[in-house]
Amino acid sequence: MRILLIHSDYLRYKTKSKTKIAEKIEDEKKGGEFDNALVVFTAVEREDEKDADAIIESAVSEIMNVSSQVKPDNVIIYPYAHLSSSLSSPDAAKNILKGMESKLKEEGVAVSRIPFGWYKSFEISCKGHPLSELSRTITVKPKEEEKAEE
Amino acid sequence: MRILLIHSDYLRYKTKSKTKIAEKIEDEKKGGEFDNALVVFTAVEREDEKDADAIIESAVSEIMNVSSQVKPDNVIIYPYAHLSSSLSSPDAAKNILKGMESKLKEEGVAVSRIPFGWYKSFEISCKGHPLSELSRTITVKPKEEEKAEE
Ligand SMILES: [Mg+2]
Ligand SMILES: [Mg+2]
Repeated sequence: MRILLIHSDYLRYKTKSKTKIAEKIEDEKKGGEFDNALVVFTAVEREDEKDADAIIESAVSEIMNVSSQVKPDNVIIYPYAHLSSSLSSPDAAKNILKGMESKLKEEGVAVSRIPFGWYKSFEISCKGHPLSELSRTITVKPKEEEKAEE
Repeated sequence: MRILLIHSDYLRYKTKSKTKIAEKIEDEKKGGEFDNALVVFTAVEREDEKDADAIIESAVSEIMNVSSQVKPDNVIIYPYAHLSSSLSSPDAAKNILKGMESKLKEEGVAVSRIPFGWYKSFEISCKGHPLSELSRTITVKPKEEEKAEE
């Protein structure tokens, strides 16, 4: 998983048209505006499918870590395929993005997830302080192989 | 090289503070505003150092190709290390970014290059049409090895 975290004065977005892999959304998800937002542009990668739970946990831990420093009022999970050239399947991506949203909610974070698979217009204002633009590659160490011999 | 091309209603930026690798800039470069802009967020990669001229040519050709479709009034080269985890040296990056600027100028494009190595605030408005967000990996095929035998 590649993430790009932008600490923003505001993020606004509107869905414009669907791609073939667009998720179904309620009308209230067709646009939004968030102030003092940590926008987490996220590309879920093929490797992440091997252990979705661990990737979710690791991504959320990284987001919480940055949040504790920049203190946003909102955390926004923004699907962003353009950060990787080795993408997961759309279904795996949606599951992992939703998993991140759930886990951040559990942690008490004001989190919103932007619709997956839609063309969107957006406006963002990056604050420009040294922690306002960060990128991370999230990987999970392979689990120890079960030993074949006793 | 990784590039992310955003066709934008506007881009505004201000330099905030220097990093250790900041380029020297004139006052007029400390901020700017551009309408109907194709913003080319660019990460120069280690591999690109092997053949800077070819990478510049290939990147410019890709930018011209997208420009011919979205018809921006301005093309903005925006250094963006966050698009890659395998960056070139800062000097190589600056040379290649400057090379892209020069070549686009030669082609008659209204091009501006955003300062390298500064923390910056910025505002951008992505139009949201299907060609308004594109990413590309620019590589150069290795040159044919000189044959050792006659
Ligand atoms: Mg998008
Ligand atoms: Mg920057």
